[in-house]
Amino acid sequence: MTDLRKAVGRFWAAADARDWTAFAGTLSEDVVHTLPQTREQISGRERYVRFNREYPGDWHLSIERVVAEAGQVVTWTRFTVGQEEMNAISFFTGDGAGRISAVTDFWPEPYDPPAGRAHLAERH
Amino acid sequence: MTDLRKAVGRFWAAADARDWTAFAGTLSEDVVHTLPQTREQISGRERYVRFNREYPGDWHLSIERVVAEAGQVVTWTRFTVGQEEMNAISFFTGDGAGRISAVTDFWPEPYDPPAGRAHLAERH
Repeated sequence: MTDLRKAVGRFWAAADARDWTAFAGTLSEDVVHTLPQTREQISGRERYVRFNREYPGDWHLSIERVVAEAGQVVTWTRFTVGQEEMNAISFFTGDGAGRISAVTDFWPEPYDPPAGRAHLAERH
Repeated sequence: MTDLRKAVGRFWAAADARDWTAFAGTLSEDVVHTLPQTREQISGRERYVRFNREYPGDWHLSIERVVAEAGQVVTWTRFTVGQEEMNAISFFTGDGAGRISAVTDFWPEPYDPPAGRAHLAERH
């Protein structure tokens, strides 16, 4: 558990620093990245590193929350690009040897509250 | 940790069964529900139960994944309404006495893959 939590900490630190060697070092060779919203899947360490390395924009990230148990970690991160901010939620699975073997990302976007619930909710 | 994980299991089972008494029993009186995408916040057990009770549609849910540690639980659930399916990710915090004191929900929607990464991703 501790190993995977630490690997995920290094994963995000390396991504934010664009240190792709350190980033690759957190991943198992057959890592699979899944994006359920687009139904995309990126298979293998080399492709996954390229996917991140080629991602455009001067984004930076901070970790909002981490929840970890044996073999699984979830992070909630905030990505900023200029004035724009995005939340990301990532589910990590470990390979049992301290590396990340699967990452499933969600990128929820802002939306307007549906009608009919303003009597129960405050907006911030 | 086990207490909160069990409370979250009862929370989702009660929601799916529309058993609002059992649902309320999993919550602390001052529970706070936060929806970062709409910037809504619902404060207190009574309002939060109403929020769920009044939510329209013949939705049903299944739990896709749970990650739990001391005082924190994350769930990934799938909601279905007829043919439509939605993912939800919920971060739970415990009150230290086996009840849920905070819930933060994300509802990520499908989107089209950005251009320029089809060489790295397969679509399913």
